[in-house]
Amino acid sequence: MGSTTSLHFDEFKMIKELLSPLSIGEVGAYGLSDDGAKIKVKNGDIILTTDAIIKGIHFPESEDPKTIASRIIRVNLSDIAAMGAVPRAYLLVLAIPSSTTLSWMESFVEGLSCEQKEFGISLIGGDTTRTQGELMLSITMIGETYDNKVLLRNGASVGDYIYVSGFIGDASLGLSLIEGRNKANSLSVTDYLINRFRKPTPRIDLGINLTGIANSAADVSDGLLADLKHICNASGVCAEIYLNHIPISSEAESMVSNNLNLRMDLLSGGDDYELIFTVPFKHISKVNELSEKYNVQIKQIGKIIGKGLNEDVITLKDVNGKILKISSEGYQHFRN
Amino acid sequence: MGSTTSLHFDEFKMIKELLSPLSIGEVGAYGLSDDGAKIKVKNGDIILTTDAIIKGIHFPESEDPKTIASRIIRVNLSDIAAMGAVPRAYLLVLAIPSSTTLSWMESFVEGLSCEQKEFGISLIGGDTTRTQGELMLSITMIGETYDNKVLLRNGASVGDYIYVSGFIGDASLGLSLIEGRNKANSLSVTDYLINRFRKPTPRIDLGINLTGIANSAADVSDGLLADLKHICNASGVCAEIYLNHIPISSEAESMVSNNLNLRMDLLSGGDDYELIFTVPFKHISKVNELSEKYNVQIKQIGKIIGKGLNEDVITLKDVNGKILKISSEGYQHFRN
Repeated sequence: MGSTTSLHFDEFKMIKELLSPLSIGEVGAYGLSDDGAKIKVKNGDIILTTDAIIKGIHFPESEDPKTIASRIIRVNLSDIAAMGAVPRAYLLVLAIPSSTTLSWMESFVEGLSCEQKEFGISLIGGDTTRTQGELMLSITMIGETYDNKVLLRNGASVGDYIYVSGFIGDASLGLSLIEGRNKANSLSVTDYLINRFRKPTPRIDLGINLTGIANSAADVSDGLLADLKHICNASGVCAEIYLNHIPISSEAESMVSNNLNLRMDLLSGGDDYELIFTVPFKHISKVNELSEKYNVQIKQIGKIIGKGLNEDVITLKDVNGKILKISSEGYQHFRN
Repeated sequence: MGSTTSLHFDEFKMIKELLSPLSIGEVGAYGLSDDGAKIKVKNGDIILTTDAIIKGIHFPESEDPKTIASRIIRVNLSDIAAMGAVPRAYLLVLAIPSSTTLSWMESFVEGLSCEQKEFGISLIGGDTTRTQGELMLSITMIGETYDNKVLLRNGASVGDYIYVSGFIGDASLGLSLIEGRNKANSLSVTDYLINRFRKPTPRIDLGINLTGIANSAADVSDGLLADLKHICNASGVCAEIYLNHIPISSEAESMVSNNLNLRMDLLSGGDDYELIFTVPFKHISKVNELSEKYNVQIKQIGKIIGKGLNEDVITLKDVNGKILKISSEGYQHFRN
């Protein structure tokens, strides 16, 4: 154990031995030794989401394997939360370069194991292969709907209040600190922001309890503006949001201070994995109840103001009601 | 259309536009525009399988995109067949190098579309990302059990007859022809064998109908010997098989002729995606009925002869009952 030997052919068995204990919580995983896995559905429909990440593109080269495990699990759980479903199990695809060490794998598996315990899920299957490229991980997360209800993006209606959980912008600032593109003025600020990037909090309880209350929801993965735009486009509506309502942590505040451009950047930063959702007026009192019950900050940041399907579906206003120009709407892949 | 421009940022939208029409068959795919997909379960449990393939490792560099699409779909369907389940939908992860062209993507999507029609499945979600490495594809296939019954690997019992569908060894010979490691003596033999590698036949009807008849089953992906070993190890039994019972196509026969080593190689070749299964004596008449009803050749190749958990769980005998030494048991990843 703890070896730094590179993984090769003979150690394939060891990977299996490392991974298969992660499956003991789910009978239908068959110890990862069959052609597939079985999920016995209890009382809802099945929800499926997939997210893939590649070293150097979605996480920094030097990232710790436990952190990588935490993040890929949590990112996928966030999609389950955004559907209002209860997470159940996951499949893992691992494409591993030959330079990967056994101690790396052990640490990665330890990370998976911690997250499984925290969120009550099990590994039920997957595939491992070597790659000549960079390490790639892909997870398919399986959830079950509660009472057959789902949260979709396409139900936002004119008059809905727009809410967001937690803080916006912490994760993108955290990433900029990891990558050395930015510098905080205290170690505690640095630690807090980096941790928000590395270990986002999937809003599972909130998501489940928003079914029947929210008209639409998404998780903030691409950036607040980009994900709100997804909701607007799917629902055929347009929105206005107020810059001074956007929840910014005191740590993020200490970095953007009075710089309007930096503050605007937080709106397109991505990786926060908070929930953004719209609620009809008749249900807004319930949002406060959920906030208290599940101890999660929820802030109203704007309103759905009309129908619309054009490019500029979001109007951003400052504290005086003046319209601010939106220059960038969030992270997208394939930028070269 | 038909452009050879490399994919870049602006064309990400186009990929979405190419992929989302593949989802129209399944309401719960939400046009691939939500955080996840919903599967409404009809009358069974959910079966999930995942297989990932990387260019240069799992398929040749020059392989046609339509062929790649066919093969990844069929390989995953074969796992569903080996579980005795009915395929329903799939998620697709695509890691695309920037050199990938739009016409490549169009052709790949056309391949997916053909397979969807043939097997009655729909794309319901996934993820696309760029990669600095080789093209990588991963599919999670979702099936439903028929009447809550599954075919597992761990049920083989002493006295069971061992059967295999179709022919063994065609695909590995086909791959050797694609890679130029081998040469056939006619174009029709070449075409037949290469096609068996490129377009394996997932034995879905057979799999579904084997539930309740077979005690155990797996698909022949790693090689006949390796996959039978998986069954033996999972079931705690050992097996004997007879070389002259192994079903070899006339095309494969024309290549191995009287060379015993070449014939033995077919047993560890892999990629055939036939079903190997064990049936208790009381059900063997039903195997012939299935063979006729679904027009698939099924041959008895051996027997489960005892309990056992050691390394050498398979005994291979020649036509005279003489034991042949098994030197290699099939394809494994991570060989460097």
